[in-house]
Amino acid sequence: MSEIKSAAIIGGGVIGGGWIARLIENGINVNVFDPASGAKRKVNEVLENSRAAYSKLTESTRATEGVVQFVDSVESAVTDAELIVESVPERLDIKQSVYQEIEKHASREAIIASSTSGIMPSDLQSGMQFPQRFLVAHPFNPVYLLPLVELVAGKQTAPETIEKAKSLYTSLGMRPLHVKKEIEAFIADRLLEAIWRESLWLVKDGIATTEDVDDAVRYGFGLRYAQMGVFDTYRVAGGEAGMRHFMAQFGPCLTWPWTKLMDVPEFNDDLVNLIADQSDNQSGHMTIRQMEKARDDNLIAILKALKENHWGAGKTLEEHEQRQMRSGTVRTQ
Amino acid sequence: MSEIKSAAIIGGGVIGGGWIARLIENGINVNVFDPASGAKRKVNEVLENSRAAYSKLTESTRATEGVVQFVDSVESAVTDAELIVESVPERLDIKQSVYQEIEKHASREAIIASSTSGIMPSDLQSGMQFPQRFLVAHPFNPVYLLPLVELVAGKQTAPETIEKAKSLYTSLGMRPLHVKKEIEAFIADRLLEAIWRESLWLVKDGIATTEDVDDAVRYGFGLRYAQMGVFDTYRVAGGEAGMRHFMAQFGPCLTWPWTKLMDVPEFNDDLVNLIADQSDNQSGHMTIRQMEKARDDNLIAILKALKENHWGAGKTLEEHEQRQMRSGTVRTQ
Repeated sequence: MSEIKSAAIIGGGVIGGGWIARLIENGINVNVFDPASGAKRKVNEVLENSRAAYSKLTESTRATEGVVQFVDSVESAVTDAELIVESVPERLDIKQSVYQEIEKHASREAIIASSTSGIMPSDLQSGMQFPQRFLVAHPFNPVYLLPLVELVAGKQTAPETIEKAKSLYTSLGMRPLHVKKEIEAFIADRLLEAIWRESLWLVKDGIATTEDVDDAVRYGFGLRYAQMGVFDTYRVAGGEAGMRHFMAQFGPCLTWPWTKLMDVPEFNDDLVNLIADQSDNQSGHMTIRQMEKARDDNLIAILKALKENHWGAGKTLEEHEQRQMRSGTVRTQ
Repeated sequence: MSEIKSAAIIGGGVIGGGWIARLIENGINVNVFDPASGAKRKVNEVLENSRAAYSKLTESTRATEGVVQFVDSVESAVTDAELIVESVPERLDIKQSVYQEIEKHASREAIIASSTSGIMPSDLQSGMQFPQRFLVAHPFNPVYLLPLVELVAGKQTAPETIEKAKSLYTSLGMRPLHVKKEIEAFIADRLLEAIWRESLWLVKDGIATTEDVDDAVRYGFGLRYAQMGVFDTYRVAGGEAGMRHFMAQFGPCLTWPWTKLMDVPEFNDDLVNLIADQSDNQSGHMTIRQMEKARDDNLIAILKALKENHWGAGKTLEEHEQRQMRSGTVRTQ
């Protein structure tokens, strides 16, 4: 059973839409404000995907779906909301002005959570009237399927806000990860930036195509990462001698020039065209909609497979299903 | 049906053992030479894992298992081998002297494949008598389950050797990825080094524990990477506007200080102890054997799940099973 009844989403799009999907799937009513033209259409496309996904993901009882309402002002969206999710573009000034508007109309008890993937919460909350109820809750695309949400407090965030958020996101079937020290890009996106930069170099230098890079991931270490992370993977590889042995053996490899780390590739049109053309060549035979469906079907299959093993993201799903079965309000499938 | 009948493994251990498992599972007889004490025990431990794994992975017909023989010289190992796999420690001088010994006794038609994870094939083959039949075939742990093998030619490698190797590794149920331009650490390990370095910084700077890093991977992007790689993942995230749109939107994030790329963390005892202690704290409740089993069971579940979707590594498995069914020599389960 979810811990709140109503939420507001400021900013639709892929991330906002994903949040809406998670919330209504758990019986929470959602008011959405996004002034952009086409926002409603985009959100509805995400919801179409998410409804198809959830009906395959969970065969047990599910909460009665919450109601989505598109409203025409921040005020209408937030007035009765217990959780207010901000998913507007990644600019400090835009986000800060949205918080100002939110605080004029929101309940003082409401949690305000930014979906930013990199801006420091202390900066975001610096101009707020009640910054103690603000935090970063950074999800991962597709938000309706991936359980991870990074929770990051700013200097003025109250510890109770983090505790409340942990419990709330768990009730949505997510796996909250409390990032204990504030840092730009938090944890996962720092790793992703490192991979992204190295991938761009490989393509730019003509070592690999975008397809080569993708295949090097999904036929190899990507399979490992769906179930164990960086350190546990190497712990196992180190054998009985464990992590110290692994570090001693492979640590010295951590030197130039095994990665091209000294530099960021210049982000010009040539690079954009190179990547975009290769990507078209690799996957242009599928529409984005077809790719979304394939991705979702694969994620569902992986999550269900891991659930059978009571492991990792599959265990998170299993526990969520158990909570839903214990709860009162369910829909018949 | 595999394309060869006999192979030699020079150097046991986790990688050598994994190769043996793949080879005998496909009906190929293997001679193993490893002078290290305990090598036989280690290889047999890997084979125990791999046999358990294969019996769960493939319910269809399988080739009659090849015979493993531990021999006491390079000569006895390689004399009749059609494929000679070198998995000795990562030092150019050691590897080169092994090739010298191999070439004294091997057939001129035999393929000689190094399992190195980073040394350039041109350097490895530089002192060889018949370097045209040499290549790097870099696998991923656990070798008996992960399909990826990076094939890298040196300057003196014959194009036919690469073609022969592609076909051979495919017949072993693997997914050969031809790395077209020689580079240290090839493709996958460059990405892994980038993640590893950033992970070490996160732990060293006290932003995250080893467990936080692992959770940031396996509850989030790790699930994506089991089925789509770096570029396809972002292509989908970019929505209908595609890769150009994604690049334009997120390219500018590719700047300081979102990763700590200017430097390699100093590899001293403090860092080793910090990582090893946190790793013990995270996973010390499981033995390495228990972790190996959990990892293998999860990989099997993921591979089978993707097979149902005819996708990625699951499709590789499916095609291999179809080949095995068409082939003659099979065992009854």
